[in-house]
Amino acid sequence: MFESAELGHKISKESWNKEVPVLREALLDAQVDLQRAAKGFPVIILVAGVDCAGKGETVNILNEWMDPRHIETHALRDLTDEELERPQMWRYWRVLPPQGKIGIFIGTWYSSPLVDNVYGAIKNAELDQRLQRISRFEKMLCDEGALILKFWLHLSREEQKKRLKLLEKAPKTRWRVTETDWQHYKLYDKFRKVSERMLRSTSTPESPWVVVEGTDPRYRYLTIGKTLLGALRQRLNAPEQPCKVDPMPPQVPAIDNLLILGTLDLSKKTGKIDYQEQLEKYQGKLNLLTRHEDFKKLSVVVVFEGNDAAGKGGSIRRITQALDARQYRVIPIAAPTQEEQVQPYLWRFWRHIPRKSRFAIFDRSWYGRVLVERVEGFCARADWMRSYGEINDFEEQMVRNRTVVVKFWLSISQEEQLKRFQDREKIGFKRFKITDDDWRNRDKWKEYELAVCEMIDRTSTEIAPWTLVEANDKYFARIKVLKTLCERIEAEL
Amino acid sequence: MFESAELGHKISKESWNKEVPVLREALLDAQVDLQRAAKGFPVIILVAGVDCAGKGETVNILNEWMDPRHIETHALRDLTDEELERPQMWRYWRVLPPQGKIGIFIGTWYSSPLVDNVYGAIKNAELDQRLQRISRFEKMLCDEGALILKFWLHLSREEQKKRLKLLEKAPKTRWRVTETDWQHYKLYDKFRKVSERMLRSTSTPESPWVVVEGTDPRYRYLTIGKTLLGALRQRLNAPEQPCKVDPMPPQVPAIDNLLILGTLDLSKKTGKIDYQEQLEKYQGKLNLLTRHEDFKKLSVVVVFEGNDAAGKGGSIRRITQALDARQYRVIPIAAPTQEEQVQPYLWRFWRHIPRKSRFAIFDRSWYGRVLVERVEGFCARADWMRSYGEINDFEEQMVRNRTVVVKFWLSISQEEQLKRFQDREKIGFKRFKITDDDWRNRDKWKEYELAVCEMIDRTSTEIAPWTLVEANDKYFARIKVLKTLCERIEAEL
Repeated sequence: MFESAELGHKISKESWNKEVPVLREALLDAQVDLQRAAKGFPVIILVAGVDCAGKGETVNILNEWMDPRHIETHALRDLTDEELERPQMWRYWRVLPPQGKIGIFIGTWYSSPLVDNVYGAIKNAELDQRLQRISRFEKMLCDEGALILKFWLHLSREEQKKRLKLLEKAPKTRWRVTETDWQHYKLYDKFRKVSERMLRSTSTPESPWVVVEGTDPRYRYLTIGKTLLGALRQRLNAPEQPCKVDPMPPQVPAIDNLLILGTLDLSKKTGKIDYQEQLEKYQGKLNLLTRHEDFKKLSVVVVFEGNDAAGKGGSIRRITQALDARQYRVIPIAAPTQEEQVQPYLWRFWRHIPRKSRFAIFDRSWYGRVLVERVEGFCARADWMRSYGEINDFEEQMVRNRTVVVKFWLSISQEEQLKRFQDREKIGFKRFKITDDDWRNRDKWKEYELAVCEMIDRTSTEIAPWTLVEANDKYFARIKVLKTLCERIEAEL
Repeated sequence: MFESAELGHKISKESWNKEVPVLREALLDAQVDLQRAAKGFPVIILVAGVDCAGKGETVNILNEWMDPRHIETHALRDLTDEELERPQMWRYWRVLPPQGKIGIFIGTWYSSPLVDNVYGAIKNAELDQRLQRISRFEKMLCDEGALILKFWLHLSREEQKKRLKLLEKAPKTRWRVTETDWQHYKLYDKFRKVSERMLRSTSTPESPWVVVEGTDPRYRYLTIGKTLLGALRQRLNAPEQPCKVDPMPPQVPAIDNLLILGTLDLSKKTGKIDYQEQLEKYQGKLNLLTRHEDFKKLSVVVVFEGNDAAGKGGSIRRITQALDARQYRVIPIAAPTQEEQVQPYLWRFWRHIPRKSRFAIFDRSWYGRVLVERVEGFCARADWMRSYGEINDFEEQMVRNRTVVVKFWLSISQEEQLKRFQDREKIGFKRFKITDDDWRNRDKWKEYELAVCEMIDRTSTEIAPWTLVEANDKYFARIKVLKTLCERIEAEL
């Protein structure tokens, strides 16, 4: 894999002087076209490789050659406090470049699996597990339209040694050689072997690794610059977006018309006195739980989905009443903002992932993809089909970071909904809550029902199960929500 | 994930009697259309799930309903001797259904990861690693055109217990309940949890799991039958094959025209006396190695690729001279047979994977995909692009099974080739070795060179590296081949 990057590639000064001005102009042109493209896409460039192979200089040159206002460079090293409290990939999600921009990452999601394996902190099985997660992440980005370029700068063992010595000699660069560099050098063969395994298993047709010999700077810069230019042009000139596999998964017929939503006993009720007693009990319990010593290690994400007028807002208020205002955020999900529209679908939810000992309560959520967007045809079949897996991956990352993910589907009958709609139209302070959309959605009751059932079948998992709430009676629903939330948190403490 | 399969689905006898004749006819029709389809595809049905959920009966019914001559049922249990000596997936490869046929698997590639994890033989990281390999395998099958249907038959805990007791009571079925069944039952919750994890991480848009409640046989049969029918019809009626992602990976420009093939010193020579000495030495060594005590645990796969007339045959003969005829097979790869054409690309190589302590020597190989098929345009860009990864996966499976994979590229210069071609045309007993194709390939020298270099860059891995052999001098080449082979085997003993 590294053979071609140990041949001693070189570019003479003459051809460098001749080629660079042409390349720069072409890159700048491409950058402008990228911003203006009707169907914009983000460009993600990873610059990885062995120590001293010139990663930093390469990034500098790219910034010099192009318009740096539209390039975001991220040199991520040690995790910050804020990052430590979130799932591993959060630090990358928060800085993903939007459509039309270029994001350069130096110090990438590949660094820590590599180093951890070389130093024996994780075995091969766990390495593969982490690389698989990376592959799924990158596949999702590609499916969302990103152009990913992964450069691996390589040096032979001798070349690396030579370079370390050279840097150490000159007073101007001495500081750049750290003990870690020499330690890594001693492990050169190990690093090489693990890198090879890593590159092999994460080179996909959509985002293969590009191995570049790091020895001669001119060769390195020109190769990377030209590869980048070619990839940009190829994508910009493509007559259309690369066509997506339209998966044709089997349709499972509901041959006996028995749907899980249909089995809920919506007549369940809680009397007023009973309600007030239990409300006090579970709100008190919830509050106590959040002051538990071990709650500092957890965070909580609560998802509310349900029929229109099913009482999501009311249930949410019964939760927040029990919490300290500093401790929670309620995130109402409506149409995405402009900033959110130019990012991968899940970006607008990642940004709200809470720190430790905090709650994020989503009033509607990422499940919109497989509900409203599916039913209303806002996104292609291929896109919502793949999102079941992407959502499961997303929630798994939260759970691995000790986030309790609690998902509620609030279910009411068609009659109850009609009653509530009519009430809303009558009562002044409730009128803002009812729109034409609500009536329209109601006409598609059956289609929504099927979408909800498939959502439950595909995303109610052992790590983040759905709780279906019989919500014709508001008291009953609120108590079930509070009780479930308490139980789920308690189980994690 | 299993919620909808615990609702107590049921089909009445009346609707069963009404529906089955219609379904059977439609299934038989679809089966005929499947055989006649211009663009045939294989159908792979996995029937998995909890014990006693009726897997066997379901498979029986499918065979009863359809034409069993075009269905192949595989109930794979314990590994046979032959299977034990090959990579894990070999047993499945050897029985994959060809295009136009239906293969039903009961006892699938999911069984052993599941059981191993539940019984604690493998941890979650290794479970994920094995599931990832399965996903890659299934993705490859889908990319090759297969229709995969994965049914998971589910029973609630109570239902499973009831069923075990029922079976045990009747003398006719008592034998079906084994101690293992009760043991598994005791681990019901564990099994459920791990199954859920497994289904979650291996449900892809191309081949999602279909969970079916196993309690009521009529419901189970009808659901599976109708799902199968729908999937067959959907695929048969699709205006064309699902369009494949045409990956547009970055082109890496060879900016300094320095290719790894160009760096070989083709003037390397071995004198005749020296050759004879070394030939004896390494042939003797090779023979000794194959009689080493630990060689019983290994197998060897040798791949020969190279320019036309580079001397592959001669090199192969120098190897086989050192081996017992019972110990090796030489597999010349030409155009695929009819039987091979209706299988996934790698099938025709999997069938030749050797047992322990045997050699399989491939005279040309699976690399044809990224060489001749790429250059001549015999397969789409998307197909050869993905095959780098598929080939690496294939070789990794061999290596994991302790197969030594040794790959030689025999390189000669254009002038040397011309000389050899002319010789072949002159000498009577060599004339059969030169065809018009050889001359045609020669015209595309430059394109082949680029394809070879990319092949080396993408498939020379830490587990199965390429050895480039300077072959203008036959003596030198043969010795390098023998020596490398000895070294690689020795390193594994």
